[in-house]
Amino acid sequence: MNQITILMYCADQKGIIAGVTNFIHQKQGNITYIDQYVDRPNATFFMRVECDFVSPNFNFDDFKISFNLELGSHFSLHCDFYLKGQKPKMAVFVSKYDHCLYDILAKHHSGELEAEIPFIISNHPDLEIIAKRFEIPFYHIVVHKENKAQAELEQLAIMKKHKVDFIVLARYMQIVSAKLIEHYTHKIINIHHSFLPAFPGAKPYHSAFERGVKIIGATSHYVTEELDAGPIIEQDITRVTHLNSIADFIEKGRDLERIVLLRALKLHCNRKVMVYGNKTVVFS
Amino acid sequence: MNQITILMYCADQKGIIAGVTNFIHQKQGNITYIDQYVDRPNATFFMRVECDFVSPNFNFDDFKISFNLELGSHFSLHCDFYLKGQKPKMAVFVSKYDHCLYDILAKHHSGELEAEIPFIISNHPDLEIIAKRFEIPFYHIVVHKENKAQAELEQLAIMKKHKVDFIVLARYMQIVSAKLIEHYTHKIINIHHSFLPAFPGAKPYHSAFERGVKIIGATSHYVTEELDAGPIIEQDITRVTHLNSIADFIEKGRDLERIVLLRALKLHCNRKVMVYGNKTVVFS
Amino acid sequence: MNQITILMYCADQKGIIAGVTNFIHQKQGNITYIDQYVDRPNATFFMRVECDFVSPNFNFDDFKISFNLELGSHFSLHCDFYLKGQKPKMAVFVSKYDHCLYDILAKHHSGELEAEIPFIISNHPDLEIIAKRFEIPFYHIVVHKENKAQAELEQLAIMKKHKVDFIVLARYMQIVSAKLIEHYTHKIINIHHSFLPAFPGAKPYHSAFERGVKIIGATSHYVTEELDAGPIIEQDITRVTHLNSIADFIEKGRDLERIVLLRALKLHCNRKVMVYGNKTVVFS
Amino acid sequence: MNQITILMYCADQKGIIAGVTNFIHQKQGNITYIDQYVDRPNATFFMRVECDFVSPNFNFDDFKISFNLELGSHFSLHCDFYLKGQKPKMAVFVSKYDHCLYDILAKHHSGELEAEIPFIISNHPDLEIIAKRFEIPFYHIVVHKENKAQAELEQLAIMKKHKVDFIVLARYMQIVSAKLIEHYTHKIINIHHSFLPAFPGAKPYHSAFERGVKIIGATSHYVTEELDAGPIIEQDITRVTHLNSIADFIEKGRDLERIVLLRALKLHCNRKVMVYGNKTVVFS
Repeated sequence: MNQITILMYCADQKGIIAGVTNFIHQKQGNITYIDQYVDRPNATFFMRVECDFVSPNFNFDDFKISFNLELGSHFSLHCDFYLKGQKPKMAVFVSKYDHCLYDILAKHHSGELEAEIPFIISNHPDLEIIAKRFEIPFYHIVVHKENKAQAELEQLAIMKKHKVDFIVLARYMQIVSAKLIEHYTHKIINIHHSFLPAFPGAKPYHSAFERGVKIIGATSHYVTEELDAGPIIEQDITRVTHLNSIADFIEKGRDLERIVLLRALKLHCNRKVMVYGNKTVVFS
Repeated sequence: MNQITILMYCADQKGIIAGVTNFIHQKQGNITYIDQYVDRPNATFFMRVECDFVSPNFNFDDFKISFNLELGSHFSLHCDFYLKGQKPKMAVFVSKYDHCLYDILAKHHSGELEAEIPFIISNHPDLEIIAKRFEIPFYHIVVHKENKAQAELEQLAIMKKHKVDFIVLARYMQIVSAKLIEHYTHKIINIHHSFLPAFPGAKPYHSAFERGVKIIGATSHYVTEELDAGPIIEQDITRVTHLNSIADFIEKGRDLERIVLLRALKLHCNRKVMVYGNKTVVFS
Repeated sequence: MNQITILMYCADQKGIIAGVTNFIHQKQGNITYIDQYVDRPNATFFMRVECDFVSPNFNFDDFKISFNLELGSHFSLHCDFYLKGQKPKMAVFVSKYDHCLYDILAKHHSGELEAEIPFIISNHPDLEIIAKRFEIPFYHIVVHKENKAQAELEQLAIMKKHKVDFIVLARYMQIVSAKLIEHYTHKIINIHHSFLPAFPGAKPYHSAFERGVKIIGATSHYVTEELDAGPIIEQDITRVTHLNSIADFIEKGRDLERIVLLRALKLHCNRKVMVYGNKTVVFS
Repeated sequence: MNQITILMYCADQKGIIAGVTNFIHQKQGNITYIDQYVDRPNATFFMRVECDFVSPNFNFDDFKISFNLELGSHFSLHCDFYLKGQKPKMAVFVSKYDHCLYDILAKHHSGELEAEIPFIISNHPDLEIIAKRFEIPFYHIVVHKENKAQAELEQLAIMKKHKVDFIVLARYMQIVSAKLIEHYTHKIINIHHSFLPAFPGAKPYHSAFERGVKIIGATSHYVTEELDAGPIIEQDITRVTHLNSIADFIEKGRDLERIVLLRALKLHCNRKVMVYGNKTVVFS
């Protein structure tokens, strides 16, 4: 059996749902999930469909061509098609913090995170031991002011070689360049250790402590050129009190960061996120 | 413009979504919301659809007849149709606690709760003053062991007279009889002051305190014959510590109760809840 | 029996706890609650003590004098003493939104909020009907650009006449002047409808919607001259999704605002909040 | 510098706080933390004190003897004294699930969990590879109906040899015997995958799914003879909807379990938990 997921959007108009469901029905498909959303102020329609095809004659490429021919041009649909079982290839960028990396590898190992991890890249050698424990190739690419462009070329070469689909910055303590972002538009997922848009940039826990907040947060978002301003995928928070020091904020934050990042990664890998404007539609 | 909401369920089968969306499309309707759910172990399909009909010739009754004729029998669909603007009539039952009643009346007054409140019934006179402040008729019907059956007949008569659609037990401290439940199957909404199924029955805060829990909860559910065992609509919780006395539990619980109950009432009034088996499907 | 609450702070030093507890012990007092906090970076000590005095000869004023004489000067303590039963007088400022006002009045009526409410002030007449329902005097003082200084003099006069202890801005849609703030330093409690420091100023729900956040918040804080930048007392959040419109944000926010504001008011009335720098110590 | 933590309880009476703080003051100690709680219905007093002693002549054993002599007998105090830096030895029991184990080892490795882990015991060989990765000795002790008593003797022997202070059941899928519980009364910490007292015993996620709850939970508690009925240390919850299958419950629950268990372990290792009756006092 072939299981297909389709993400699509277009200008809102009558008959799209009927058109799509009808088409799948005619192709002997069984819709197992359908969810849609209309952004009324912008008159834009979004839909996520999962469907099964039991026929042995089903051909994924033919289906896509036929779908685009019959529906795509008629509704000016933008579509992405995914075949269940084709896991996305995820590059993992880290620096020195290990908590997010541990969670990514543990959940990858248990099969909970449906992605392939061809390698880990770091600007520090510290976490190589963890990569070894989990038997994932580890590239140590030093990054400093002078060699930044060159380092990024190295990173890009490795990613191309491994045909990487998307990148996770698992507390990677470097700002990625516009060039990298351009190559992987809305394909770089970052975890920022604050409740954005509060406290963007460096040392958010210090700023939160200084401000005397009663709640701290973490935000996972797609990276765009403006720092910590890209489309938000997931956020969560935890309570703090006057009793908590900056060190406590950092410790409490670690749990938040890894949980929020993993939720975002799962949503992305399960094809549940669509980006539009500077926002996301996150299907259930 | 006519805005229709349809809730439907049937045995899961191919082509239902296409059938329904096609039908609405043919009737010049524009689907503004569609959400569906398949209970795979029980092979049951659930769907909620909202659609707009701008034609001045649209007739709600004709639409229902036509829908049932063309789709209902073909798919063995069970359907409920609602016309936007036809607010359900909600009977409010209270005893002596006022916190849920205040919230119901304040949100009703502000238009946030799309229901009509023809009257309040209580087995105590205490809250009549609040009913008066909000200008809602108040019936004081004393209930005790000896007159219970008679009191319920009175209640039923009032509800029939006012053509009540559903009942909210807003901390009504009486067990309603099987007879009343039969008349309003899955139409009586209760708020229980515990995280069900923990601590059903009387004095849940006392039991929670005794057990030394670190979290207390509230549960809103449809009333069935078995006490506090009906389909759950909404739950929420709040933290407690060893510092909190039973009085603190009760005070913290009051905020929980009114918020959970109001969420459940809004979901019900907005036609977002379907009951099946002893569970609910709650659409977003 | 006299029940006393003491809030104190001073430079951190050895022997304060022993000194204070010893003193109370010698005065035949029984300590029923003690909680302290040391801000190490700033070497500042904070303590909250509750104690009971059963002796009929106990005199509150004598106790304060004696405490200050024996301990105050020795430790350079800053102290506030409160006698249980002497409720603070709270002025309520509102504009047109009623949800916070309803909660304040309902909880005041039920005895949950230990404050006196001598009056409500509003720059609009809309909520007078609610004030009447709860039998609280209502002053309608129009505020516009030209008469702002004059209107504030009127407000101040009313507050002086009623010997107001503190002010709650229950969605009062005006910026209070530096003069008023000076008169009631750390005595004006505001509810801001965002998770500060994100989205200060006007229309935070619109900004939050625009930014595509997945969580919205509310913050109760003491008012200082810089807008929405004063010491935070309490914050809380709720989840939103792409499905939620700005209207949904506002509706969900209403529940947050009233709950967060009421928690802050209870903490303040129960003498559990100390302000230092631009932060609060909130005792449990 | 010596940092001491004292946990104590006794019948509530006048002058305890003054007595204790005075004593520490006289011994040249500086109190850095003091928190107390009075269970009024049972007239029991609980206190947790942290204090620093900078004198090079300070002797921990002398201090304890002196404390007990001067205060212990006078107030009939029950005391436990801990010297900072003396980490408790924690035995880890697992079966086949790895998520809690990963978190324990990662946080132990990062220094966040102040305990020594002398070994891991399992009734299955599956997780030996993880033990090896983290270089912790692993004992595989098969347990089945016939050899249960014998297996427990082996476990006890290993624990005695390593002078274990307490045990964590990190999803250990066996019921430990009364004998083991007797040896480690209130020293065995379990994680149960439900919001106790709801769904004790086997397969709580299945029962929660069956009941149609909207929230699932996890509970960490000290093990007592009655199954899943011991003193609760920590609980937390997460939301579920009708969309979630039992498999989803289990997946969402995994994150809950490890977080709740780790919080409980940190509280226990940081000497913040006191057991009384069948409850806990958890200091902040």
